[in-house]
Amino acid sequence: MSSEPISLGEALASFDALWSPRVVTRVNDYDVRIAKVEGEHVWHAHDDTDEFFLVLDGELSISLREPDGERTVSLPRGAVFTVPRGTEHKPRAPFGASILMFEPTGTLTVGERHDEVPDHVDVTTGHALDV
Amino acid sequence: MSSEPISLGEALASFDALWSPRVVTRVNDYDVRIAKVEGEHVWHAHDDTDEFFLVLDGELSISLREPDGERTVSLPRGAVFTVPRGTEHKPRAPFGASILMFEPTGTLTVGERHDEVPDHVDVTTGHALDV
Repeated sequence: MSSEPISLGEALASFDALWSPRVVTRVNDYDVRIAKVEGEHVWHAHDDTDEFFLVLDGELSISLREPDGERTVSLPRGAVFTVPRGTEHKPRAPFGASILMFEPTGTLTVGERHDEVPDHVDVTTGHALDV
Repeated sequence: MSSEPISLGEALASFDALWSPRVVTRVNDYDVRIAKVEGEHVWHAHDDTDEFFLVLDGELSISLREPDGERTVSLPRGAVFTVPRGTEHKPRAPFGASILMFEPTGTLTVGERHDEVPDHVDVTTGHALDV
């Protein structure tokens, strides 16, 4: 864990990969991760944890499969949303976005249940930030 | 927990109180809190948890009492920092700031150990957001 503050702008400038989160800092046994995203992720669910999103730049949409049916929420810059544990969801960002996530260390980007993972989605528990 | 995204801008516009966090959403047994701050908080420590700060607007300084002595880190807008558990710290923002925090639900604003709490510091585990 860095003993100095980290600029999210500098952290985002340090990598280009899409759908491939970097761990910025840790809070107890949770990660604060950032990612650049564009296009579509994959339908997946985290059975054991909620997942928090904050949009730092651009706009993120998250499609959700809920008991009442499917819906999509839109998060412009500065919006936050928590996907409840067990809820199948698919993030997407047609025009690109930068996002911050908060979730337990070890959480996989594609959860425990997911559709076939496309090549552009990185299956990871988050990479170290190199700043 | 809201089933719709929340705009941090609208959330911040919904209250004026300083050093009095609002709970924006929850992630498992953690709170995402926001606060408006100006002036000085109080020296305190959370013995059982790290505390994460993200500066949404303005600039936040956090003084830290570490084994090697006292130092102050400065967080401009868009910077993040995690105060390790057990570390005495005192946030301050001479010119004001808006901040976001991650910490376990139930965490007191003044921790378990603290100096005398001045009147302008709200001793709370966070208030409900009214948006």
